[in-house]
Amino acid sequence: MVEAAKRAEATIIDVVFHEFNPFGISGVVVIAESHLSIHTWPEYRYAAVDIFSCGDTLKPAEAAKYLVEQFRANRASCVEVKRGLFPGSTGLPHKAKEGVAANGATEPLQMVL
Amino acid sequence: MVEAAKRAEATIIDVVFHEFNPFGISGVVVIAESHLSIHTWPEYRYAAVDIFSCGDTLKPAEAAKYLVEQFRANRASCVEVKRGLFPGSTGLPHKAKEGVAANGATEPLQMVL
Repeated sequence: MVEAAKRAEATIIDVVFHEFNPFGISGVVVIAESHLSIHTWPEYRYAAVDIFSCGDTLKPAEAAKYLVEQFRANRASCVEVKRGLFPGSTGLPHKAKEGVAANGATEPLQMVL
Repeated sequence: MVEAAKRAEATIIDVVFHEFNPFGISGVVVIAESHLSIHTWPEYRYAAVDIFSCGDTLKPAEAAKYLVEQFRANRASCVEVKRGLFPGSTGLPHKAKEGVAANGATEPLQMVL
């Protein structure tokens, strides 16, 4: 997930991961441009990833591509959910620098491994 | 966010928050049933929340309602994104206990304050 964030050219702020008993992990990489999260259900060979981005510098598709490859997913689906597009809004900049305005989006990725 | 998670009857695992300069926060509450996340843009009076849930015990609408109230949002929109509904899947249980099967969903909430 950290490598995926790097490939998306994200600025990493924090990383938290938890392993569950008997199986499964939940993890979040907080980035200046929002976050990447993952939840896995190994018993279903299933993982759900969110790539939440803002600003116009992040490359979320690179992160998604890398994760699908690394998990060697048999099937993957990726949906873009746009948000922060209220009337009168010029868009949501990311936190790392000012003067960059683009729109927030969440890309829920799900993979069957 | 922690109180919202409690109102959703979530089992809280971890809480991470970061404050950005000059403004805005990013925060995640990791729960046994997945996570709640928030990103705020005070300069746009805008906040984006994800309530990612699995299992059939969480009450995500209670968390959303509480946050909209607490932020005194002038406008709020909430979208449910269903996932983990592959053919042959009986659904995704949460991590806290076994034998509970329901489907994963993400509820992106956005608020203008």
